[in-house]
Amino acid sequence: MTRPQVEPWVPADDRGLAYGDGLFETILVRDGEPLLWPQHMARLGRGCQRLGIPMPAAAELDGLPAQAGPGLKVLKLILTRGSGGRGYFAPPIAKPRLLWQAFDFAPQPQHWESGVRVRHCRLQLSIQPLLAGLKHLNRLENVLARSEWDDPDVAEGVLCDTQGHLVEATCMNLFWQRRGCLETPRLDGSGVAGTLRAVLMERLEINEVTMGPEVLAEAEAVWLGNSVQGLWPVVRLDDADGSRQLNWTLGPVHRTLQGKAHELLGYPATFAR
Amino acid sequence: MTRPQVEPWVPADDRGLAYGDGLFETILVRDGEPLLWPQHMARLGRGCQRLGIPMPAAAELDGLPAQAGPGLKVLKLILTRGSGGRGYFAPPIAKPRLLWQAFDFAPQPQHWESGVRVRHCRLQLSIQPLLAGLKHLNRLENVLARSEWDDPDVAEGVLCDTQGHLVEATCMNLFWQRRGCLETPRLDGSGVAGTLRAVLMERLEINEVTMGPEVLAEAEAVWLGNSVQGLWPVVRLDDADGSRQLNWTLGPVHRTLQGKAHELLGYPATFAR
Repeated sequence: MTRPQVEPWVPADDRGLAYGDGLFETILVRDGEPLLWPQHMARLGRGCQRLGIPMPAAAELDGLPAQAGPGLKVLKLILTRGSGGRGYFAPPIAKPRLLWQAFDFAPQPQHWESGVRVRHCRLQLSIQPLLAGLKHLNRLENVLARSEWDDPDVAEGVLCDTQGHLVEATCMNLFWQRRGCLETPRLDGSGVAGTLRAVLMERLEINEVTMGPEVLAEAEAVWLGNSVQGLWPVVRLDDADGSRQLNWTLGPVHRTLQGKAHELLGYPATFAR
Repeated sequence: MTRPQVEPWVPADDRGLAYGDGLFETILVRDGEPLLWPQHMARLGRGCQRLGIPMPAAAELDGLPAQAGPGLKVLKLILTRGSGGRGYFAPPIAKPRLLWQAFDFAPQPQHWESGVRVRHCRLQLSIQPLLAGLKHLNRLENVLARSEWDDPDVAEGVLCDTQGHLVEATCMNLFWQRRGCLETPRLDGSGVAGTLRAVLMERLEINEVTMGPEVLAEAEAVWLGNSVQGLWPVVRLDDADGSRQLNWTLGPVHRTLQGKAHELLGYPATFAR
């Protein structure tokens, strides 16, 4: 992502800044056409309902992707509850603030083709069922988890919750195949329910499970994915110290799910190996 | 609190807005003199250290309270990590953004004198030891908890964590006396370590405990307090449906701790009963 094309400002009393009282979406847009738009709007709507923030009119939202301009972009929407209220007490009638920025975007084809090395994070995600699955603005845990490494060869970090169950990566969802079945962590206590995850779960049989990281040792294939980057096969998993713990050889199993995900995003669906 | 005297703005790419990646302090200021300033700066410093945000120079911070102007004010500081970085990955050299606003403030003497009615909240605070105690910008749980009631006769809500242990109120710390000893919840998993709590713990023997709400039935006195409002005796505790669960009669025990807290804040230290 490079420089934003729009730089809106918010007042310091905006509740999104003061309390993280709001939601966001990051949407892949190709020549003004958003990918997985219904899924993004559905998640935003669920977040609005859960937080009691009025959802902006569809007409207002639907016009934004076209304004991102030509080429491959990431459109970032931020919806806050706006200003007002008394401390944490929200104003009875909120006037939400909708911000958007569009960034040039280039995906990482080497991650698609060769897979990625990832590591376990030490941080354990806290469990809050009232916020689980939402893409809300309280993301300090993700920031802290992402600060655990700066080795550019490590593409992502895998996170468990405080009960030791697998949840996600710092900005991607986690999938694996075990005994021929696709599985992904259940997100009823922590994590962000990704839109790529949602659409894959609509189209394929993917079981939501509550399991510790030891399950990955039984996996034939592991992937990380989101609606912007596509699907990255995991070829190596390190522990939180950076020592190799598990590895996988890229094969047809990896390519099958990757192809299905990439068709949805307009990314390459077949690879040399 | 009424209208702010300063209305700064932040760009939409500020990480405080994007992720709640920052800290805040709300400081009582009387005629330009801040109350509990060392405790506020100590907590801000701990937060900076934990999040890896450079602490602003003391000279910059120390000059702010005087700018709040004459009278009784609340000075709100927000310190964000600033803009930049790649997604959750923080910029290696952060340029933090320091904002401040000053609000006219009037405390609530009726709460000091007659005590308050509070209720249990349904929301259980999530457990994240890496963030516990800090006054960071990820406060959606407080917002959701505060949204559980709008009865103006209910002054605060008492919160437990997901393990069922008492933590705090939505914007105040919790204290009680039991068998002649002062106690307050340990804040190693959730909650904000208040500055009034900190200074009271420096001066008095107050035990930090990990206990469920049933302990309150054994309490001779219960209080809520923070560095802005002072100390409120609790005279009635309702369950999450609003039905009375416990009550206390105001007495000398209440007034003793209240007097010590209020001396620190320049609030009235003696009451008629």
